[in-house]
Amino acid sequence: MTAPPADNHNIPDPSIRRLSAYLRYLENLVTTEQRRVSSRQLAGCVGGSDAQVRRDLALFGQFGRRGVGYEVDDLIQVIRTIFGTRRQWPVVVVGAGLLCQALLRYQGFKQRGFTLVGAFDTDPRKLGARYGDVTIQHIDEVEAVIARHHVRLAILTVPATAAQRTAERLVRAGIEGIMNFASASLNVPADVHVNRVDLTASLEQLSFQLSSHRS
Amino acid sequence: MTAPPADNHNIPDPSIRRLSAYLRYLENLVTTEQRRVSSRQLAGCVGGSDAQVRRDLALFGQFGRRGVGYEVDDLIQVIRTIFGTRRQWPVVVVGAGLLCQALLRYQGFKQRGFTLVGAFDTDPRKLGARYGDVTIQHIDEVEAVIARHHVRLAILTVPATAAQRTAERLVRAGIEGIMNFASASLNVPADVHVNRVDLTASLEQLSFQLSSHRS
Repeated sequence: MTAPPADNHNIPDPSIRRLSAYLRYLENLVTTEQRRVSSRQLAGCVGGSDAQVRRDLALFGQFGRRGVGYEVDDLIQVIRTIFGTRRQWPVVVVGAGLLCQALLRYQGFKQRGFTLVGAFDTDPRKLGARYGDVTIQHIDEVEAVIARHHVRLAILTVPATAAQRTAERLVRAGIEGIMNFASASLNVPADVHVNRVDLTASLEQLSFQLSSHRS
Repeated sequence: MTAPPADNHNIPDPSIRRLSAYLRYLENLVTTEQRRVSSRQLAGCVGGSDAQVRRDLALFGQFGRRGVGYEVDDLIQVIRTIFGTRRQWPVVVVGAGLLCQALLRYQGFKQRGFTLVGAFDTDPRKLGARYGDVTIQHIDEVEAVIARHHVRLAILTVPATAAQRTAERLVRAGIEGIMNFASASLNVPADVHVNRVDLTASLEQLSFQLSSHRS
């Protein structure tokens, strides 16, 4: 197996999303003690083809052996290397509403390489409350926490009206990637990555599928 | 403008995801009273090209006029027709943890065509609590609520260990589309659609981008 190429800029987003799904599937396989996996099995978890699985992985090097498939443990390490999640990434959450509280209690992040190191708000009634390992702090502490933990990733769960100015503050403090739950587009420098999470879009995909089935 | 074709089965998922993003953008434009929009403007909201916007919309008919662009209001109605969201879809949520509570308080669903009509759990400590317009009921009420409101869509926020049996119960009760937050794959009949929401995948996309930028 070879390491990922130095320049990953031209990898299509859908391939990266499928890699996440493959990784979930592989991590479940580990618990069943299955040691090898075929392209076809991996294809099943995204509803794709085995050729697509091979193409997705070929973007990053030469893996697996014809007729034998992939070693589960090796492929997990390869995909984690691609994501950079063989180490933990520290992450801050800004906006301490119910969604933030749910995220702080969610175990999946840590298992998959992301440790929430701080959560911030301006509402005095929220400050000091503890969820999981994290205590809600005033937003004025965010710069110090980002610097102390070398944080590059942030999750934004503030109201839409506060999203842009909060994003700007985070970018000034050194944040380079933002998972944006706020229902507002963010205007950030080109070298800052934003991944907007649109929960309604998921329902729209389903209603689209049910509508077309009906007609 | 023509109506969507009768058979939408071959529309690629990424196009549908982009339609959601276009719709968000268009709905924001309405508040600014801008009445026309170009392919290029729409492309900006997904980081794509204007040719891709035209291709996405051409899947559903002939819209817009060369050199003039699209009428904002018309295009909103076209995309809502595609999604089937010109009317409200009733939706149930099963698993009344913090994530469910956050979803019940979230205003975006209703604005975009989805009304949460019930939330269910088995934990006696959660029953009777009210969030937004919904009171948490015992799971044994779910079949009656699905039948009464003709519910076809469900959001699953139960623990992974309860996901499969809960999904089977929902399908038996008539659910045809499941937005799955549980970290478990669901085995459902082929005519039931599952959209798995993987919040960590969003962070993985960001860490991938930061890793490749660094190397």
